[in-house]
Amino acid sequence: MDVRRIAGRLAAIVGPDAVIVDPDELTAYECDGLTGFKHPPDLVVLPGTAEEVQAVVRLCKEEGIVFIPRGAGTGLSGGCLPVEGGIMIGLSRMMSIVEIDIPNQRAVVQPGVVNLWLSEALAPYGYYYAPDPASQKACTIGGNVAENSGGPHCLKYGVTTNHVLGLEVVLPDGERLHLGGRASDALGYDLVGAFVGSEGTFGVVVEVEVRILKKPEAVKTVLAVFDEMDDASRAVSGIIAAGIIPAAIEMMDNLSIQAVEAAVNAGYPTDAGAVLLVELDGLAAGLGAQTAVIERVLRDCRVREIRVARDEAERALLWKGRKNAFGAMGRISPDYYVQDAVIPRTRLLPILRVVEEAAARQGLRVANVFHAGDGNLHPLVLYDNSQPGQLERAVAAGADMMRACIEAGGSITGEHGVGIEKMDFMPLMFSEADLDAMRKLRAVFNPDGRMNPGKIFPTSRACGEVASSHRAPHPIEAAGLAQRF
Amino acid sequence: MDVRRIAGRLAAIVGPDAVIVDPDELTAYECDGLTGFKHPPDLVVLPGTAEEVQAVVRLCKEEGIVFIPRGAGTGLSGGCLPVEGGIMIGLSRMMSIVEIDIPNQRAVVQPGVVNLWLSEALAPYGYYYAPDPASQKACTIGGNVAENSGGPHCLKYGVTTNHVLGLEVVLPDGERLHLGGRASDALGYDLVGAFVGSEGTFGVVVEVEVRILKKPEAVKTVLAVFDEMDDASRAVSGIIAAGIIPAAIEMMDNLSIQAVEAAVNAGYPTDAGAVLLVELDGLAAGLGAQTAVIERVLRDCRVREIRVARDEAERALLWKGRKNAFGAMGRISPDYYVQDAVIPRTRLLPILRVVEEAAARQGLRVANVFHAGDGNLHPLVLYDNSQPGQLERAVAAGADMMRACIEAGGSITGEHGVGIEKMDFMPLMFSEADLDAMRKLRAVFNPDGRMNPGKIFPTSRACGEVASSHRAPHPIEAAGLAQRF
Repeated sequence: MDVRRIAGRLAAIVGPDAVIVDPDELTAYECDGLTGFKHPPDLVVLPGTAEEVQAVVRLCKEEGIVFIPRGAGTGLSGGCLPVEGGIMIGLSRMMSIVEIDIPNQRAVVQPGVVNLWLSEALAPYGYYYAPDPASQKACTIGGNVAENSGGPHCLKYGVTTNHVLGLEVVLPDGERLHLGGRASDALGYDLVGAFVGSEGTFGVVVEVEVRILKKPEAVKTVLAVFDEMDDASRAVSGIIAAGIIPAAIEMMDNLSIQAVEAAVNAGYPTDAGAVLLVELDGLAAGLGAQTAVIERVLRDCRVREIRVARDEAERALLWKGRKNAFGAMGRISPDYYVQDAVIPRTRLLPILRVVEEAAARQGLRVANVFHAGDGNLHPLVLYDNSQPGQLERAVAAGADMMRACIEAGGSITGEHGVGIEKMDFMPLMFSEADLDAMRKLRAVFNPDGRMNPGKIFPTSRACGEVASSHRAPHPIEAAGLAQRF
Repeated sequence: MDVRRIAGRLAAIVGPDAVIVDPDELTAYECDGLTGFKHPPDLVVLPGTAEEVQAVVRLCKEEGIVFIPRGAGTGLSGGCLPVEGGIMIGLSRMMSIVEIDIPNQRAVVQPGVVNLWLSEALAPYGYYYAPDPASQKACTIGGNVAENSGGPHCLKYGVTTNHVLGLEVVLPDGERLHLGGRASDALGYDLVGAFVGSEGTFGVVVEVEVRILKKPEAVKTVLAVFDEMDDASRAVSGIIAAGIIPAAIEMMDNLSIQAVEAAVNAGYPTDAGAVLLVELDGLAAGLGAQTAVIERVLRDCRVREIRVARDEAERALLWKGRKNAFGAMGRISPDYYVQDAVIPRTRLLPILRVVEEAAARQGLRVANVFHAGDGNLHPLVLYDNSQPGQLERAVAAGADMMRACIEAGGSITGEHGVGIEKMDFMPLMFSEADLDAMRKLRAVFNPDGRMNPGKIFPTSRACGEVASSHRAPHPIEAAGLAQRF
């Protein structure tokens, strides 16, 4: 690519200040939350309007240039990395909340609006936006749409796709489409549903219409302390079986508790086998009865202690532990390697044992911090990258865990997306015919694959390879799946 | 088509008893719930297994024959009518409930399972399947998937797409795919979401994995009687604004009440301007507080009377009126013509006036029975087909109503699908680029359009025509939109 010439053409669209070509500045755009991977784009353009996005995409088409949209770069699967270079379309300048329509419980936002900003803007009306990824202070709603992001409260409220009503998108050919919107849940094919979670491979989202919710009248947050993780696992199934869907059920095992307590002092007992963080919300009058049911289930599962947050400060402290758990791992291990598998909730107990055994076989420890109510595991295999062979052993343990989850009827990602991280695991889940249907779907919107190439679909060399349990980890995988901090 | 030869080939797959060629028997398959249209298929085949479906579809491909899947034929938009003839694949023999997995709150069913059967099978466990179309005693889950069916309780629980976790499908080329399933909400592109609501134009569903819900501990059903429909409309917005999402909020106007009382004696006051049927469900302890909030809103909106069902019998009677409302229209009019538009909930009040005026301009009456909480209108324009010109006037009134709904930010269908009924209205909602994206999506699965042709997309002659408000109704529309009983 003739960067200078293209930069000039882009500057004519967005102005010279919104085009980045300086290699030093480009380093800010070379990675996302999946550390270990670095791929700088050839240049970055920061359009300020949908029309500018459209003009930029048309230029890319005319010039035959690869392009990649980017939100805040907080993704965990490398979904926005320009693995083949090209133009990165950063959407951070498109950060207006266009409309708030309280009576119809809808808001319209530009893609660069940070997730939490919307809830903050809605707070004076007593409303909020439900999907709450851990990165919600930084991640953008456009990025959430791309990855179909989840969060702790998605147990009750569903993931991003359940909250997106309409989209304005620019397709790789420069066409601008309005999909879904306002009152039409069920009209024609569900193109909105197809777009959400397409990981930036279908089109650039330039406006999002979302459902907003009234803040619950009351919230009750319970910390349940168990001696044994098995008991905590049974309690998760027990709560759901009792017909209660809490807003969140998060689990942390002993190793996670130790890391969290060393880092943020959330007040979890460090000798506990596991804790559950259960949050209920709704009308105040209903919460007492629900709490009683949950307490009964917890006692049936040999809970050691039940602690109910008495005020917002206590609640915030309990959540602080959970929200900082990944970061806290640095207190107990120099490195970790995280999985994002989903299993049927009832398989929690046996799978957590398999996870433990898989790590033990490799002489490694594993910490578990996860969305238990959804069966969405996040095993963190702890290792030390300065010790030769440990990374490979961590990856091998992770592969064993993933296989076990799939055998249990689960899936290789719950909420982080496939990106480049899990693309070579796709054949474990999907037949060639399934993948072919997905490729054809991508071709509807992105026929020449110029938009965000090298994502989601397995590279041919790796096809099937990952099914073998005794191969050496592929260098990309080994590097990609490892998180260093 | 050489029917005899094809019938012989089909009989070799499914057995001779499962192939229908007798014209008398074929008449049972020539229409669905959209009366006025009759299109007999060339022949009907009733496969008993997924493998038989696959073999039939492969035969159709080999012979280049058009084919159409069919559930129970209760659809309201003509979605399963063989408008171009061909082979109808009736799925009524595939009626097994394959698996009930209570702990993971999932069930797997064949497509011919009647909606209500699943809830009946789940009742001993205290569970049920939430989507509840009015036709739930007859319609099949496969048909519900095709049309993304709704129902009164979809206000709280969402439509079919919110309850389908996985699909086994046979594509028009004979390929069999497993989409989604079990624990994977968020993996790869959302092909399940794309399939649900594709109205039988993407593939034949041969197995459905659905989410099942625990029955609410308690249910409270409230009949609110108003002198003025405007007050009832304001109450709907008021209830939602109060932060309560009831399981259902249904509205009936005076004309509907009169029809219902004449037919089933549900006990609605015949002098009321409108009634709301509000149902709350959940834990018993929470319902009292919610009912209090709702009663306050109702009083603020000048409710005349609030009646709370004291037992299951009273509840059933209140619902009986609503569920039989369409059928009851025969008591007050020889014919009616029904719309299925959606509007933003806050526009209820002005739109109901527009609906009234549009009918009055044509010298006709209109009855309203609808899912008010969702803003999903069902205006029933009453007319007498034996009077020359009345049908045309009803259609003209309906077109005015539809245009007003779209102008108010609404949509031309809430839950009945597009089918053949509304395909010529699609350009009112979608640009040519939008429709083109949908056509391309269809081509991913159904590239030669041999599966269920002549649906959803506007016929070229009608493109744009419907946007004109003064044209004579097209004969197909006039016939298609009219319901006689």
